[in-house]
Amino acid sequence: MALRVAVIGMRGIGNTHANVYNEHAAASLVAVCDMVKERADESAQRLGVKVYYSVSSLLENEGLDAVSVATGGFENGGAHFEPTMQALEAGLHVLCEKPLSNDVARAREMVNKAKEKKVCLGTNLNHRFTPLALQAKKWVTNGKLGDLLFINMALWIENPNETSPFFHLRALHPHSLDVMMYFCGEVEKVHAFAMRAPGRQNWSNASINLKFKSGVVGHLSGSYDAGRLNERCEVAGTNGQFVLDGVFEKLTFFPRQGDEIEEYFNPPPGAEGHMDSFADTFSTRIGAWIQQLVDGVSPDEIDASGAAGLAAQEIIEAAIKSFQTDTVVTL
Amino acid sequence: MALRVAVIGMRGIGNTHANVYNEHAAASLVAVCDMVKERADESAQRLGVKVYYSVSSLLENEGLDAVSVATGGFENGGAHFEPTMQALEAGLHVLCEKPLSNDVARAREMVNKAKEKKVCLGTNLNHRFTPLALQAKKWVTNGKLGDLLFINMALWIENPNETSPFFHLRALHPHSLDVMMYFCGEVEKVHAFAMRAPGRQNWSNASINLKFKSGVVGHLSGSYDAGRLNERCEVAGTNGQFVLDGVFEKLTFFPRQGDEIEEYFNPPPGAEGHMDSFADTFSTRIGAWIQQLVDGVSPDEIDASGAAGLAAQEIIEAAIKSFQTDTVVTL
Repeated sequence: MALRVAVIGMRGIGNTHANVYNEHAAASLVAVCDMVKERADESAQRLGVKVYYSVSSLLENEGLDAVSVATGGFENGGAHFEPTMQALEAGLHVLCEKPLSNDVARAREMVNKAKEKKVCLGTNLNHRFTPLALQAKKWVTNGKLGDLLFINMALWIENPNETSPFFHLRALHPHSLDVMMYFCGEVEKVHAFAMRAPGRQNWSNASINLKFKSGVVGHLSGSYDAGRLNERCEVAGTNGQFVLDGVFEKLTFFPRQGDEIEEYFNPPPGAEGHMDSFADTFSTRIGAWIQQLVDGVSPDEIDASGAAGLAAQEIIEAAIKSFQTDTVVTL
Repeated sequence: MALRVAVIGMRGIGNTHANVYNEHAAASLVAVCDMVKERADESAQRLGVKVYYSVSSLLENEGLDAVSVATGGFENGGAHFEPTMQALEAGLHVLCEKPLSNDVARAREMVNKAKEKKVCLGTNLNHRFTPLALQAKKWVTNGKLGDLLFINMALWIENPNETSPFFHLRALHPHSLDVMMYFCGEVEKVHAFAMRAPGRQNWSNASINLKFKSGVVGHLSGSYDAGRLNERCEVAGTNGQFVLDGVFEKLTFFPRQGDEIEEYFNPPPGAEGHMDSFADTFSTRIGAWIQQLVDGVSPDEIDASGAAGLAAQEIIEAAIKSFQTDTVVTL
């Protein structure tokens, strides 16, 4: 029997989640919910599902297995806490948009609540759910790179919003930090410098130095002052290094010895694993979430879990503290 | 009349300097000097110039205008101090290999001595002397990038030598830090993490966070654990960004608005500005040095001066201190 799911928060990203559920054989989208009646109605009509304007009423009436929480709020994460806690309390699995919360104490509560209720909490850290990222991860795991030495990540997009001084760090970098931890494990220490582009209120550029528990060293370069999406991740080990360009565009392996460079690209349209655009990363990420729920994977084995979302956020808060106090922060 | 020049220290790099002087219309290589007789004799014979085994005797007898100091020593810079000080004391202009010295106090003495004697002291920071680096510098200067925001630099090569714990930082990164300062100006604060590849004594990998006096933030990723040369510098501003790949291979400009990416490559063989290999950066760097001496440029306007070499070394020592004490170091 298909999973009974609903989506809470019906702006653009909520509708993207809803579309994925609607097209997935193992899931059945039964309702959508938004406190803004017009937004909820429009989505419900488009998708041909029931409509709710309150989370409690949705949870009481639909016998759901899981929900996606795609509400927005302050710093793009201020409104994730309440609906997520309500759904967890009701014993549902929850896939929450990133950042899990913009308030790290609340994010911790969310992770603890999922543990207490023994349900799955996932974070929509979709950047690591691409065929090329999975390929790169296999190389790390099977030892193709040897012992890991360092990692450099860059992620920037255009975002002129000015909701708060640390909007850029909290709203964008759960993704990049999650990708870094996906390849290199947990982070031990953080140092950050930040700069505002002229005229901005927001610390729209950041340079974050990281030391991983494994000893690996690394860096994240982030910005909201760029006219095009840029994402690049390079990981080097004693036997070679890879560069992942874009979220799904190109993966290159450079062996330390010899000249046999290996290049992998996004497969052509129609071929297995092809991605048309960044929007397809939602399909692969949410598809993996559905499959893990169907397979009955235990809450602590969910990919890109709430704990992973929390780990990224702990680093972001450490980076902010480092930058504000001019110190190195140990996690 | 051609400049009368000599080279002190006749290993590989000393011979490279000598070749450039020998082929340059405005310079006349009159002698070479090395305390190892065999090495000195072999070079003198190959080049058809006089031979000396002691610096004092070279300086007393040849009426020189300038010398290159290409001696090696501990951490590739331990033997630069004495011949450089002797030549400066004798009133000669000196082009010194990098690092100016591996000992920052000695490097300061060298810069002060050149000032006192009112002669030119240059450092062989050859990475910034390529047609593409000059083009990128023009963009920075003429405002094509807008206000600068951040810079990321990567430089790594294979070097298994283990002369000391900080050999990698002191011997390799005068280059990368000089390129970063060439584009973004002086550095205000430094933070560094470092890691040893398994089995190494040397801190063979480093992740260095930088804040420039202008407010620009940036990062240097360095390694001696790689099978191929890698050099990459990206600089972003409010109007766009450039990526300089390799020392002379490719320069790309990405405007913030619009899609008109500009790409520049190493010109084809035979064309003006073509570089056959990394070795050609010595010709352009030493060529610029000769031209500036011929033009009578004042000591404080020499490109890639002793002061520039010292500035890079001050950052390296700050990075070492930061790494050792887990603090942010202000220069």
